[in-house]
Amino acid sequence: MSEDISSVGIVGGGQLARMLALAGYPLGLRCVVLDPASDACAGQVAPQVHGEYDDLEALDELARRSDVVTFDFENVPAAALAHLADEVPVHPCPAALACAQDRLAEKTLFNQLGIGTAPYATVDSREQLGAAVATIGLPAVLKTRRLGYDGKGQQVLRSAADLDTAWDALGGVPLILEGFVDFTRELSILAVRSLSGEEAFYPLTENRHADGILRLSRAPCADAALQAAAQDCARAVVERLDYVGVLAIEFFDCGGRLIANEMAPRVHNSGHWTIEGARTSQFENHLRAICGLPLGSTAALGPVAMLNFIGRLPPREAFLAHPDVHWHDYGKVPRHGRKVGHATLCADSPAALDALLATLAPQVPADAG
Amino acid sequence: MSEDISSVGIVGGGQLARMLALAGYPLGLRCVVLDPASDACAGQVAPQVHGEYDDLEALDELARRSDVVTFDFENVPAAALAHLADEVPVHPCPAALACAQDRLAEKTLFNQLGIGTAPYATVDSREQLGAAVATIGLPAVLKTRRLGYDGKGQQVLRSAADLDTAWDALGGVPLILEGFVDFTRELSILAVRSLSGEEAFYPLTENRHADGILRLSRAPCADAALQAAAQDCARAVVERLDYVGVLAIEFFDCGGRLIANEMAPRVHNSGHWTIEGARTSQFENHLRAICGLPLGSTAALGPVAMLNFIGRLPPREAFLAHPDVHWHDYGKVPRHGRKVGHATLCADSPAALDALLATLAPQVPADAG
Repeated sequence: MSEDISSVGIVGGGQLARMLALAGYPLGLRCVVLDPASDACAGQVAPQVHGEYDDLEALDELARRSDVVTFDFENVPAAALAHLADEVPVHPCPAALACAQDRLAEKTLFNQLGIGTAPYATVDSREQLGAAVATIGLPAVLKTRRLGYDGKGQQVLRSAADLDTAWDALGGVPLILEGFVDFTRELSILAVRSLSGEEAFYPLTENRHADGILRLSRAPCADAALQAAAQDCARAVVERLDYVGVLAIEFFDCGGRLIANEMAPRVHNSGHWTIEGARTSQFENHLRAICGLPLGSTAALGPVAMLNFIGRLPPREAFLAHPDVHWHDYGKVPRHGRKVGHATLCADSPAALDALLATLAPQVPADAG
Repeated sequence: MSEDISSVGIVGGGQLARMLALAGYPLGLRCVVLDPASDACAGQVAPQVHGEYDDLEALDELARRSDVVTFDFENVPAAALAHLADEVPVHPCPAALACAQDRLAEKTLFNQLGIGTAPYATVDSREQLGAAVATIGLPAVLKTRRLGYDGKGQQVLRSAADLDTAWDALGGVPLILEGFVDFTRELSILAVRSLSGEEAFYPLTENRHADGILRLSRAPCADAALQAAAQDCARAVVERLDYVGVLAIEFFDCGGRLIANEMAPRVHNSGHWTIEGARTSQFENHLRAICGLPLGSTAALGPVAMLNFIGRLPPREAFLAHPDVHWHDYGKVPRHGRKVGHATLCADSPAALDALLATLAPQVPADAG
């Protein structure tokens, strides 16, 4: 059956769709993206259907041109995906997306599966916010249950005086209050599960964020015990959701104990190092999974790091002057807060990677602002 | 200056142009290909100018849309390249192409540089053929000086009776007679030299041909002494020609002594393993070289082999069932003698690679015929 799949539709035409499309060509898969933007960066490398995500005609055209459909961002309208799913297989399935779209559903699932989370409470009124803070304590983070990403839709509460400010900023939509977690570092795992149920897991990645946006990822970064613990969590989630494709779970590492923060039902920024740093990239494995092909090896090829470029690119030559560095320009116009590219740094030893990072990380420009 | 290069023109729109275009996108380089075929496989992944290679309007359009121009086959008409070179930088330079287009010029250059070749003689008449055979002996190979590839334009002479047949088949264009070389295996080296004169060399690759077409490549395959000898040859050639880009030289290994067979002024089939098997692919390094960017590491990541698919593809799933195998579908219609794809086999040890090859090589279908 998988031999018949030759066209993959992608809802969303950003850099994740772009890297999926580039990974598809060698596999004999042609991607077509749906995006309203006239300059969607995936549209530079693959055919694009121009239309809003709730435009039924555009959705129908995408379905008509696709043997299977996936998405490159988790805020796809549920109705759009349901419409598509009536016409063509959609992976990951709409139910998995729905869970990942709602921080409450996500945390509830984690807890049902025995996966630790920060303490949390739903907040639908100013009164509930006060009650939740009384239970969970401060500091804490008030978040929208839906549509948050890259730190958007979040307010940190440090004292009682912050409650009104936070409520004024976010109130009116379903919210969740999450207790602070005392962690030593942030980790993420990428799981991939195919149509046939085959599963594979990439090595744990250590991530550093600033202003809510990922800046640096590094892999492999954990011992066998932590890796096994993360894989157990990811396996439980993908099996419960009958998940097909790549799924990312972000954890806090609390001195060797993993606390799940959130999950992303798609290829993930913290997995970009897999393009050069793993035997098979997350993009190739996502496509293999949703097309029912066997999965490729997820083994890391050595120590590797990724530096994200936010707002604008650094000078290309300064990075490529290091022969073990690879460049990824997403073809986007520079803009504040926008992910415009990344570099992958490979090395033969962790110490060599440290040295390369010490040289190059300071050359990543501050956001264009 | 290299920061200004964003568009690369490619004369020819076959699988080499396709893989160049795919390697260009992450570097921020957009390729545009010139090819007369309506189904040129590079045209599936990059914009295409449709036109014959001697169509001046099409050449002008390619030049207008390109900051630098290269080519994906060595039989580009010299006049076409000269026309382009008047308008836009062309790399490798037309003089290097002219040398590689003529077996006599190529062998003369090799000998001038002290690089061993088979004995050879020019043949422009039936009488000269007799004289050349008298000098060089039999067996020998009569070849057209120009426009040969994949074993085309060649006749093997084993006895005096073969001379008339060979002459009837090939006579009328400039020919060369080459003596047989008693070799143990065929090797190739890929050199890359950038606009700034930076040089790098990939590990020697062992190649097996059938019916004049490459079937299997394997790397790395040689000790340091042989590698150094091959690099010396390649360095001498690229420096003499002021060559910019990837150059392949094919050798016969005569018990540790290298005899140069021919060269190709472009990315090369025997270097396809570098996509997954080397830190930087030949395609990326060719683009870096002609755009004046620093070169990426040419180090091999481990034992690797490439199986060529001629005529038609084997079943994709049978190959991908092995997690260390990668698939390359060129998006071509099956046809006798056509290169339609390849697979890359990675392994952690030479023995593991042997085992993988023993399983998969028999599954490569015979040519569609």
